[in-house]
Amino acid sequence: VRGDHTLRISGVAGSDTAGPEDLIYADSPRHADRAAKSGAACALVSPDVALPGKTLLVVSHPKLAFAKAAAWLLPGPHIAAGIHATAVIAPSARLAAEVAVGPYAVIEDAVEIGAGTQIGAFCFVGAKSRIGERCLLYPRVTLYAAARLGSRVILHSGVVIGSDGFGYVPGEGRQWKFPQVGGVEIGDDVEIGSNTTVDRGSLGTTRIESGAKLDNLVQVGHNVRIGENTVIAAMVGISGSTSVGRDVVMAGQVGIADHCTIGDRAVLAARTAVLTGKNVPAGQMVWGIPSRPYEKVREQVVWLARLPELAARVERLEKSREGK
Amino acid sequence: VRGDHTLRISGVAGSDTAGPEDLIYADSPRHADRAAKSGAACALVSPDVALPGKTLLVVSHPKLAFAKAAAWLLPGPHIAAGIHATAVIAPSARLAAEVAVGPYAVIEDAVEIGAGTQIGAFCFVGAKSRIGERCLLYPRVTLYAAARLGSRVILHSGVVIGSDGFGYVPGEGRQWKFPQVGGVEIGDDVEIGSNTTVDRGSLGTTRIESGAKLDNLVQVGHNVRIGENTVIAAMVGISGSTSVGRDVVMAGQVGIADHCTIGDRAVLAARTAVLTGKNVPAGQMVWGIPSRPYEKVREQVVWLARLPELAARVERLEKSREGK
Amino acid sequence: VRGDHTLRISGVAGSDTAGPEDLIYADSPRHADRAAKSGAACALVSPDVALPGKTLLVVSHPKLAFAKAAAWLLPGPHIAAGIHATAVIAPSARLAAEVAVGPYAVIEDAVEIGAGTQIGAFCFVGAKSRIGERCLLYPRVTLYAAARLGSRVILHSGVVIGSDGFGYVPGEGRQWKFPQVGGVEIGDDVEIGSNTTVDRGSLGTTRIESGAKLDNLVQVGHNVRIGENTVIAAMVGISGSTSVGRDVVMAGQVGIADHCTIGDRAVLAARTAVLTGKNVPAGQMVWGIPSRPYEKVREQVVWLARLPELAARVERLEKSREGK
Repeated sequence: VRGDHTLRISGVAGSDTAGPEDLIYADSPRHADRAAKSGAACALVSPDVALPGKTLLVVSHPKLAFAKAAAWLLPGPHIAAGIHATAVIAPSARLAAEVAVGPYAVIEDAVEIGAGTQIGAFCFVGAKSRIGERCLLYPRVTLYAAARLGSRVILHSGVVIGSDGFGYVPGEGRQWKFPQVGGVEIGDDVEIGSNTTVDRGSLGTTRIESGAKLDNLVQVGHNVRIGENTVIAAMVGISGSTSVGRDVVMAGQVGIADHCTIGDRAVLAARTAVLTGKNVPAGQMVWGIPSRPYEKVREQVVWLARLPELAARVERLEKSREGK
Repeated sequence: VRGDHTLRISGVAGSDTAGPEDLIYADSPRHADRAAKSGAACALVSPDVALPGKTLLVVSHPKLAFAKAAAWLLPGPHIAAGIHATAVIAPSARLAAEVAVGPYAVIEDAVEIGAGTQIGAFCFVGAKSRIGERCLLYPRVTLYAAARLGSRVILHSGVVIGSDGFGYVPGEGRQWKFPQVGGVEIGDDVEIGSNTTVDRGSLGTTRIESGAKLDNLVQVGHNVRIGENTVIAAMVGISGSTSVGRDVVMAGQVGIADHCTIGDRAVLAARTAVLTGKNVPAGQMVWGIPSRPYEKVREQVVWLARLPELAARVERLEKSREGK
Repeated sequence: VRGDHTLRISGVAGSDTAGPEDLIYADSPRHADRAAKSGAACALVSPDVALPGKTLLVVSHPKLAFAKAAAWLLPGPHIAAGIHATAVIAPSARLAAEVAVGPYAVIEDAVEIGAGTQIGAFCFVGAKSRIGERCLLYPRVTLYAAARLGSRVILHSGVVIGSDGFGYVPGEGRQWKFPQVGGVEIGDDVEIGSNTTVDRGSLGTTRIESGAKLDNLVQVGHNVRIGENTVIAAMVGISGSTSVGRDVVMAGQVGIADHCTIGDRAVLAARTAVLTGKNVPAGQMVWGIPSRPYEKVREQVVWLARLPELAARVERLEKSREGK
């Protein structure tokens, strides 16, 4: 700490809107100017940032420290308090201590919910589902029967966990529904964004492992596995039986067909399409339709833009040959 | 049947997780090894599969037989039983025999619901809607006013049927809403996945014909027609007034612009984009942006990857010409 | 008016389904034939359209006039009437005159709702939210805490406003949640389609300005700004901190990465992808992955289709050179 050790900090804010009791952060000299003009009295900064007149908490990774400070300073989300009188809870459901359930939530038979979990209004928790401790289900989440969530899972409004996967067998002039009766298991510390859908397994199990983060409007097909700490941006679609490793990063609108394998720490740039059965090696960054190593696709893109010019050059060569 | 005719079968499972009373299937010698190690005592197999020690039901299409067996062996989905006391049902609504309505469902004026249909918790059935027999509306489905569903329709959680289409007329510096007051009609045996949206017609009608299957997070615009038994994977978007034939297959993330015609039995590979007003001939497989015959696009993709190399060859030719 | 000034008009319809009291429109001689055969007695037409036997209202822009006439002739949407007995409304919420609230809606503490607004069944209005006058929230809309809507806003079923943005800071082998505690503000006359998601700001504010129209299944990330009267078709995704100008048009399935700037009146053709940090100049029409001026991409597309042929021409040139 450089400056006033007695400052009172009560919240966090961006530099532009911070008041005197808000903590801000600046992780590079580029942001120092904005931070210097802030109403905040105290900032988390990297060693190369100077902010005259402010109290500084110098750390190696200010943004990370800011995220941790925010989790500590800000009140946790308030989704429900106590068990609302209108909640419909089956007598066979077992709710641990300090579980809160909002208005009009429905909790079916033989559900188990761990201590401190908050279930929002209009949530539907299907029979035999198991939810760990200190989870947050925002209003209007659906868990189909027998879904399993670990602890500290956050599900945003409109999420559907455990709906039927998409599988039909064509025959005799119609589509016959293949059984979609497998499981769906979600580890600890997973967060899933609004209106995202996660299908249950057909005969096996769909798994999202601990620490994975999914943005809004993502689709996870039946029997998919998503590894630990993998981060998946909005509107990504992952088809059936695909296995995604740990610490993978997928940017927005990526699509992965069925039966693919995405290695640990792979990075899929925005809008990448991985075709059926393909693998992305561990640690590789890919892009394009179909997916290829990122640098190759960048080169393609450059040449694609010059394609009319290249065609003109070929034409000149042809004319010159004919001219001989 | 080859083997024990007296075996008791009570369920279905995948080879890896099956118990002695579960039925499994193996439709090629490739899967025989896994099936042979299974705990199941009985398997549906094609004539070329041998599984020593197991009772075999030899059929020409084991996966199809398995799907049919599952429908017969497994209990149907249990969404609601009886009419829950908290359901809000307009006095003018007519519910046939054995209709079940879950907690907090809302059924508005002049709705008609056929025998054996189950309506889940938090479903909203708008005024004058008609629902056929033995439909399954999972919790949290919305039907806007005057939606029409056939029989044995399955709608998963979060589905919205009959919302306003997207139509505005620009003028005088703003966007004026074009009327979205048409109908929406869904045939028999249609299944629609979680969080999929189907808009009503603007002045005409949006139609999804019998046997069509839509996956999660699909968007169907106003006045669209989707033909019988057509299968549409997740995240496909179909814009206004497009007509899709019967037995069409669309892979994930396909987009079809407005006023297109997709012929019967066409196949659209993943991420295909059909531009405004274009047609895809009956039976054709297409891919790419914009959509073209699949084989042409494959060839393009190969050449696109070699584009830097092609450019280098052109450069060599130019140098060689200059060098003369 | 040409024809019978005493005709009674009670509704609007398409030419094919209109009855004698319905108003239709025909904005070009191309549509005159269909309009002439219509059961309607009266049509809004442009000066170049003749429909013998029908009463004509001749205007310069028939479709615009039709949209206005429809708004005037058709009854407004009926979402709720009065305050339903089952609605859970916090005592500290302030509802203005003629606010209607449907069954099982939940309105939390310190919410303010303007006159004439209709809140559908199962809507959740989080604490401290402010909603203007004459808004329509169809059944099953979620507003997280402190969302702000202007007047005459229409939100369709499944919309989520104010969910957490997608921001994590990697460190110590896990993803730490960056605070998502900013605001979300929506102007007047905004319409948002079914199952669309709009995240709140992380520290700043997500803004959708007056007159903007968003279709179904759109994703708006944290801290995004969308300008006045901008029109965004289905399945568009806009990543964090991107700024979109006014009167912009985006076709379906467009994706815009984070920190981009889209100028006023720009047009983004279907499936365009704008890469991180890129700008689209005001008034420009763009297409492609990555986005480039529309005409350039069209030229690319043409050459891409001819790429195998171009490669063959290069090969002929090479052979001819070797043959010398």
